[in-house]
Amino acid sequence: MDHDRLSRQRAFLAEGDKLKKILRRTMLTDGSRRENSAEHSWHLILTAMVLREYAIEPVNFERVLQMLAAHDLVEIDADDTFAYDVEGNRTRAERERRAAQRLFGLLPDDLDTELRSLWEEFDAQRTPEARFANAVDRLQPLLQNLATRGGTWRIYKPTRDQVFQRMDPVRTALPALWPLVQRAIENFFSSPEGSFGDL
Amino acid sequence: MDHDRLSRQRAFLAEGDKLKKILRRTMLTDGSRRENSAEHSWHLILTAMVLREYAIEPVNFERVLQMLAAHDLVEIDADDTFAYDVEGNRTRAERERRAAQRLFGLLPDDLDTELRSLWEEFDAQRTPEARFANAVDRLQPLLQNLATRGGTWRIYKPTRDQVFQRMDPVRTALPALWPLVQRAIENFFSSPEGSFGDL
Repeated sequence: MDHDRLSRQRAFLAEGDKLKKILRRTMLTDGSRRENSAEHSWHLILTAMVLREYAIEPVNFERVLQMLAAHDLVEIDADDTFAYDVEGNRTRAERERRAAQRLFGLLPDDLDTELRSLWEEFDAQRTPEARFANAVDRLQPLLQNLATRGGTWRIYKPTRDQVFQRMDPVRTALPALWPLVQRAIENFFSSPEGSFGDL
Repeated sequence: MDHDRLSRQRAFLAEGDKLKKILRRTMLTDGSRRENSAEHSWHLILTAMVLREYAIEPVNFERVLQMLAAHDLVEIDADDTFAYDVEGNRTRAERERRAAQRLFGLLPDDLDTELRSLWEEFDAQRTPEARFANAVDRLQPLLQNLATRGGTWRIYKPTRDQVFQRMDPVRTALPALWPLVQRAIENFFSSPEGSFGDL
């Protein structure tokens, strides 16, 4: 037993606990509080499991699940950057790069490389696995919004174009679900009170 | 597009949101609040990814991850039953069986069967995947306890034998980590103030 190795693994897992304190803008469906990034990551994994059949291309599903579990860890240092925060998104890449260096750097070198590559792959959106994982990451907050009759769109008032742009990974990776997303966006932005209508 | 199928998938994912409201006894490592079962499930997945090398037998890792994501869903109806709650554990199986029927029953039949089988397999602990997943599920709260210098053991005062019995899946599925668990238990129960000493 390599005790230094195990100590590093334990230190990383203890640090990971802090993701439970990073709050997103999205609310729980009962509107009681904001969702944190750890439980969000879990919900993405469940969403991937249930909607897997809609992926447009074959994916290594184990890698998708690991990517979804690891992709938000950088928020422990960099905090969650809201999708429609233009200024925050300008500095996001650099903040998250530094965070990845510190956080994954707690691990033994081989695991540092492995987990960091999951995060980099997710962010680059160049592989089938990353495209599927990103589509799920866009779709799940929309489903939360549908359940809370408007959710963050009602509060933060992004434009119709911003929402369409944000949701675009669903169009390319989960095209069968795109009509639902389109109807949701069109209904929301065409009704004066901003509701979804019947979907 | 089968709209009834998609509606069922959406209904299940919306219901899954409720796992974020199920509170466990374990505290976050900063002691600020109790952990919920959704973020706990995520932390188990991360723990499995980081400690995978210690599994005593080969496992289908994709199945392990899916099992860890699905295994606590029944708590939405059956609530979390604390490990050392003797009375609660007497009625747990029946409560969770009914919960599984309702919750997984929200899904289309094929997914109902698939997700329910993950939960049943986890609970039966008869496959390498289930043994590994259960060991991770026992180990993660211990690691949280180590980080909070006693945690739930200090509050709920289980006996030394109860803790050894509870942790036994670690001995069989992750034997390389058993000395750490043993030292933690022995140190805690032999020190008058119930601390872990240096591990």
